Amino acid sequence: MKRCSTEEIPFGAVVSLVSRSKFVFLNNRLRSLGLSAGQFPVLMLLAKEQNLMQDRFVRHYHLDKGTIARAVRKLEDGGYVRRITDPDNRRAVRLFLTEKGEEVIPLLRDINREWERQVSTGLSKPEIVALHSLMRQVARNSYAILQKNGDPGDD
Amino acid sequence: MKRCSTEEIPFGAVVSLVSRSKFVFLNNRLRSLGLSAGQFPVLMLLAKEQNLMQDRFVRHYHLDKGTIARAVRKLEDGGYVRRITDPDNRRAVRLFLTEKGEEVIPLLRDINREWERQVSTGLSKPEIVALHSLMRQVARNSYAILQKNGDPGDD
Repeated sequence: MKRCSTEEIPFGAVVSLVSRSKFVFLNNRLRSLGLSAGQFPVLMLLAKEQNLMQDRFVRHYHLDKGTIARAVRKLEDGGYVRRITDPDNRRAVRLFLTEKGEEVIPLLRDINREWERQVSTGLSKPEIVALHSLMRQVARNSYAILQKNGDPGDD
Repeated sequence: MKRCSTEEIPFGAVVSLVSRSKFVFLNNRLRSLGLSAGQFPVLMLLAKEQNLMQDRFVRHYHLDKGTIARAVRKLEDGGYVRRITDPDNRRAVRLFLTEKGEEVIPLLRDINREWERQVSTGLSKPEIVALHSLMRQVARNSYAILQKNGDPGDD
C-alpha cells in the first residue's frame, strides 16, 4: 500500500487511525524515558493538578480503570509519581508528581505539540481552529455516548 | 464529574475520547450478535472486497497484527468469516464472508451510521462536511506518522 486512500474510510475509522498515530508516536518518543503512551495522560493531568484521586483520571480521560491502574503502577515504579493511600480509606489513593516527574513535563508538552504539529501539516491556522472547535463538539457528544452506554470507566 | 469540560483537553485527548466512544458504542450494540468492536473493521472491509489476504487488513486499518489475528479467529469461530490458507504458502491466508457474515453487514452499517449521527449532534450539514474533510487531512498526516515511526502494523 503505497498511498493512504482515506477518501473511502468512514469517519470512525479515520478517528481510529489518528488515535493510533498518536499512540505509536508517543510510544516512540517516550521509550528512552522508560515511559509509554498509556502513562502520558496521567502525567499531563498531574502537571495541571496535583493531589488527585486515582479515580479522577478515569473520569477525566474516560479510560478504563485497569488501564489507569497499570499506568499509575508503572509511573510509581519509574519514580515519576508517588501514591499516597488514606490510612482510613484504602480506596482513596492520591497521586503526586515526584521531582523526576516534574522535570519530565516540559518534554512531554513538547512531544505533544510535535504530534499536533505533524498531524496538522497542510492545514491553515483558521482550518486548525475550525477542526479543534468541531472536534470538541464531537468530543462532547462522545462523552454523552459514554455516559449513556455505561462506559466501564464510569462505574 | 457532572459535565464534560472538553475546552481544556488537548486535541490528542479529544481524539482519544471520540475513539473510545466508538469502541464502547460498538461493543454495546454488537454484544447480542456475539461480536465486538475489534471485529467491526474486518467485517466492514470484507463487505467491500472479498478474497482478501489477512495482511491487507493490517495495512488498511493500520491496526496491529495481533489485534487483527484475534479478530479474525473470533469471526471464524462465530461463523462470520471463512479463512482459506493457500496450500503452497501457509502465510497466505485469504478471507471470505460466510452467508451469516453477509447477513450481518446491513446491521453493522446501521450501527456505524447511528454512531456517526450521535457524535455529530449539534453540527450543521456544512460543519459535518468540513469536519470530515479536515479530519481526512489529519488522517493522511497520521498515516505518514505511522510510516515514519515504524508502525508495528507495517512490518
